[in-house]
Amino acid sequence: MTIPAFSASGVITITTDFGHQGPFIGVMKGRILQDFRAATLIDLTHETLAHWPAEAGFWVSRSYRFFPVGTTHIAVVDPGVGTDREIIVIVRDGHVFIAPDNGLLATLAPDTHTVSVFRVADPILAKLNLQQPSATFHGRDVLAPLAAAIASNRFQPQDVGPRTHDIVPSWLEDPVKSAHQVDGVVVTVDAFGNLISNIDESLIAHIENPVACVGNHSIGFKRTYADVLPGQHLALINSFGVVEIACGEGSAADTLGAGRGAPVKITATL
Amino acid sequence: MTIPAFSASGVITITTDFGHQGPFIGVMKGRILQDFRAATLIDLTHETLAHWPAEAGFWVSRSYRFFPVGTTHIAVVDPGVGTDREIIVIVRDGHVFIAPDNGLLATLAPDTHTVSVFRVADPILAKLNLQQPSATFHGRDVLAPLAAAIASNRFQPQDVGPRTHDIVPSWLEDPVKSAHQVDGVVVTVDAFGNLISNIDESLIAHIENPVACVGNHSIGFKRTYADVLPGQHLALINSFGVVEIACGEGSAADTLGAGRGAPVKITATL
Amino acid sequence: MTIPAFSASGVITITTDFGHQGPFIGVMKGRILQDFRAATLIDLTHETLAHWPAEAGFWVSRSYRFFPVGTTHIAVVDPGVGTDREIIVIVRDGHVFIAPDNGLLATLAPDTHTVSVFRVADPILAKLNLQQPSATFHGRDVLAPLAAAIASNRFQPQDVGPRTHDIVPSWLEDPVKSAHQVDGVVVTVDAFGNLISNIDESLIAHIENPVACVGNHSIGFKRTYADVLPGQHLALINSFGVVEIACGEGSAADTLGAGRGAPVKITATL
Repeated sequence: MTIPAFSASGVITITTDFGHQGPFIGVMKGRILQDFRAATLIDLTHETLAHWPAEAGFWVSRSYRFFPVGTTHIAVVDPGVGTDREIIVIVRDGHVFIAPDNGLLATLAPDTHTVSVFRVADPILAKLNLQQPSATFHGRDVLAPLAAAIASNRFQPQDVGPRTHDIVPSWLEDPVKSAHQVDGVVVTVDAFGNLISNIDESLIAHIENPVACVGNHSIGFKRTYADVLPGQHLALINSFGVVEIACGEGSAADTLGAGRGAPVKITATL
Repeated sequence: MTIPAFSASGVITITTDFGHQGPFIGVMKGRILQDFRAATLIDLTHETLAHWPAEAGFWVSRSYRFFPVGTTHIAVVDPGVGTDREIIVIVRDGHVFIAPDNGLLATLAPDTHTVSVFRVADPILAKLNLQQPSATFHGRDVLAPLAAAIASNRFQPQDVGPRTHDIVPSWLEDPVKSAHQVDGVVVTVDAFGNLISNIDESLIAHIENPVACVGNHSIGFKRTYADVLPGQHLALINSFGVVEIACGEGSAADTLGAGRGAPVKITATL
Repeated sequence: MTIPAFSASGVITITTDFGHQGPFIGVMKGRILQDFRAATLIDLTHETLAHWPAEAGFWVSRSYRFFPVGTTHIAVVDPGVGTDREIIVIVRDGHVFIAPDNGLLATLAPDTHTVSVFRVADPILAKLNLQQPSATFHGRDVLAPLAAAIASNRFQPQDVGPRTHDIVPSWLEDPVKSAHQVDGVVVTVDAFGNLISNIDESLIAHIENPVACVGNHSIGFKRTYADVLPGQHLALINSFGVVEIACGEGSAADTLGAGRGAPVKITATL
């Protein structure tokens, strides 16, 4: 397989579990600007669950299509920082993704024979003078300058190191699909309290008149939030293509007492 | 009335009730960059009260003057997303404003005969290929590309659709002014706990030695925060030109037990 | 001493205690763009402790090296806004710093004979037409346009006013170093609950086998977070060069019941 050349747009997105206390995201951006002054820097989100790569990976994989082709996406949820865990670079659909090899990016490369995954190796770190990073902040000391090098078209993604077919799988299991049912979980909750699952709309296409079950609630599907009265629950296919459980002008997380990890079951209406 | 040509500065501000969990603001920016790579994107605030357009509208109307003439302002507080509520575009003072027609922008167009308001119609959506948005995220799928089209000078505001004189009023009532009193409410609270009202300084110019009443507290006016001792209350005309109730190095919201919607009365000192 | 010319990179960082409610940071950026349309604007952090300049100053002084030489750094924690407190401009290591003279920047100029500090005076305010700021928001009305003037290379830092050797000291005492012990405090806590002290690594180099004491806990030093089991405590030299107390995949702030201001003692292991 020949790898098509990556043509960088100069846009870099950043996703972390750092929250907004402290200068951690700011100095990552500063470090990028040191090497690539013309970068366009966009925050995806910094409020994913701490130490859990799955939520950050979910949002990156569901969001990248809304950025210009040629965008470089950095994601840092990195409980193993400073250990021998490695850093990988994925090329897919004209986008580049850089993250620790801890399962974060696994859903973007379900088959490493059709999606190119590279393992960051010593020669590129030597070329970029990144061989003495701090022990605790590789987001700033390694991933940021690496992204700057790729997003500025100085290096191609495959320049970072050897191709690999062996990456750490996601910490989140895939939904389980059977003839009359699909079982998934809530991956993330937004600021409105909407419960967002890992169940792609394609997985439930075979279920007629589907209903979503969370706890012991059965919740019918609607098109949009205003299709129920305030306080009523609804399920819908959200704007990222997955099943979401919401509450009209309220918080489904609060009213259903559910959050990340809660089981979501889709069945046919009885 | 001839409409003067809008000369875009390339700056776009974004105001929402999305909070910072999840990639919702990020993908709006990505969508803008897809169509207008050179946009300068500025967050106004994303922590306005969910589902209540009045606070977002208040901040947009009080803030736009601090941006370059030619700025395009997007505001998305949109409980009716996916229903037949429409999108409007307002041109005022050399700035453009884009939001759902749900009262959010009403204070910017108190008289639609002197301020130009346009209703987004099918032809522009067809030209921009926006006719199949998701049901739940028009901020990303409609308002973002619309703003990109206007902020990049590809389209003029009046190209979006017909002029209208019939827009949804604000959810917030105007302050009531009488000979010796003005009655308003707290619209928003900042991170310091300052209570910010909808009472413009011009409304209380006729009141000699004014005092602000919140709950059963009478609070004197000062010039700035340090004009009282820590823990003491003060009222002032804040840097956005409205009455604000504060507490020296403390939170007036906490010490007065007041928040959004709390009545604020300005009277003459007895 | 001749002052070398400051060559601005066009990058401006912003640090405040404003939080993310309301448009306060947004309008500062708008005001900068009014005067310097090509500015690159980076948020350092806006969640430092309200009214306490020390935390903002700590982060600015520990972060600036990660930005391009020629960056202008604005910091606004300003309980004395609108009083006769002054504004200072510091030039150091090719970076410019602008803040109220309230101790915020003091650690950047331990010796005002080797580091240049200038006091903002009336002539520059007159030239920039900044003589009628609001009483309560000099971040937007004075510091932002001042930074725009310097970051766009229209004015040199020394153009703002006379050099000064008399600035307000930091609100935070320096750590105390003795033969076998160093005493400091927690300055800030990050989103993971890591306790970050004001003890620079250079201060403890003379202590063999150091151990950190917080409350009545003695905590050993490790290289990185994953060097302990989840739930165990560790001390480390963090990526900003200071002593930090952490908890494996947990929050040291929660498990130790400690926060800003908590004493941290470094001693030799008994």
